[in-house]
Amino acid sequence: MNMTGVVLVEPRIEGNIGSVARVMKNFGFHELTLVNPCKIGSVARTRAVHAWDVVEGARTVSTLKKAISKYDLVVGCTGITSSKTGEHVRTPALTPKELRDALSTRSGRIAITLGREDRGLENRELAECDIITNIPTSNEYTSMNLSHAAAIILYELNNLQPPQIEIASNFEFNLLITHFSKMMEKSSYPLHKQDKTLLMLKRIFGRSMLTTREVITLRGILRQAEWRFEKK
Amino acid sequence: MNMTGVVLVEPRIEGNIGSVARVMKNFGFHELTLVNPCKIGSVARTRAVHAWDVVEGARTVSTLKKAISKYDLVVGCTGITSSKTGEHVRTPALTPKELRDALSTRSGRIAITLGREDRGLENRELAECDIITNIPTSNEYTSMNLSHAAAIILYELNNLQPPQIEIASNFEFNLLITHFSKMMEKSSYPLHKQDKTLLMLKRIFGRSMLTTREVITLRGILRQAEWRFEKK
Repeated sequence: MNMTGVVLVEPRIEGNIGSVARVMKNFGFHELTLVNPCKIGSVARTRAVHAWDVVEGARTVSTLKKAISKYDLVVGCTGITSSKTGEHVRTPALTPKELRDALSTRSGRIAITLGREDRGLENRELAECDIITNIPTSNEYTSMNLSHAAAIILYELNNLQPPQIEIASNFEFNLLITHFSKMMEKSSYPLHKQDKTLLMLKRIFGRSMLTTREVITLRGILRQAEWRFEKK
Repeated sequence: MNMTGVVLVEPRIEGNIGSVARVMKNFGFHELTLVNPCKIGSVARTRAVHAWDVVEGARTVSTLKKAISKYDLVVGCTGITSSKTGEHVRTPALTPKELRDALSTRSGRIAITLGREDRGLENRELAECDIITNIPTSNEYTSMNLSHAAAIILYELNNLQPPQIEIASNFEFNLLITHFSKMMEKSSYPLHKQDKTLLMLKRIFGRSMLTTREVITLRGILRQAEWRFEKK
């Protein structure tokens, strides 16, 4: 059973939903979640061809948070890797091949998240993702069709070897980040830097794809530091 | 100048021509040849978006022979690798990755040839190709959309370099690990656990492939914690 799902955030062109469903089924993926999608009708059906069951079985939710809550690792796809406002959010991005290599030895529930046709995922949405991926394109024309981007990423991720190492759950991962946040507060880490730093920590540990054991050890380090704070 | 061209044999859905043009330009390909195409109008234009110049510049010919005569090597794409009548024509097929490897040390004019939406290239057409490629799909649904197939093959064959992200130097990396070690000491982290934990940290951050900036931020967190140690 393929535990990797696809999340489309506010798709505006129904044909793309059908196209994404088709390529999902081509590569053995079945779990589709739609965040505030456009109306889905006959055009989506035509494009889905024999993958209409994927569209019919899709979960529709109102927020990205709801869409990704059931997944352990959230991959965000972006065509824009540099932006004045999103430097820390959008970089460093893995290529789809690097993503495949990074995921090849891990098991867990993974969400591949793609944004709107015209402007992709927003910075605040990318900030909710653990890993960022970017398909290298020609500088002449960087904007890809939504289903083409999905096709390439799912092509890379299909046929993954039997996973060997189980990654920490989303719950454990968040405990770690929250723990860092508390430790930083206790140590009077500059308040105005905290959000950016926490996001960077999320990126770093997201790329590491921590195991449960590693989360426990990292939290042990933090706990010990906190203990030391109390001691004179 | 990219000397690889795309040949579409009897495309019947004009939207697909526009979509193929778009993904061609995304990956730096410009030379499109159409063999007996359908009528091309506004739907193709809408799908091509900023790659309409590729469609406008396309060469239209009446036979596959004319389309491929200017190329040195002709790659034929097929979704069907076994057939009673075409066994020798369709096999052995290379995967797109194998195709990329096979072509990586070669120069010359290469044609990527894709067939009709419903039944692909015929045996007699595949017989005119030098190499056959097949995209591995799920047995559940093997038939891919024409532009998705093109997207994956052009993605594999593009010569675009992924943006290079410079990782932190070994020196900076070691400063970070040493810093962790000092912080752990200062916080009375159990001595007998330190070596194992440091090794784990090395592994975690090694997998993250930290940038210089990330090393600086992580050390900032540690420095702040150490500062807190001193404070009552």
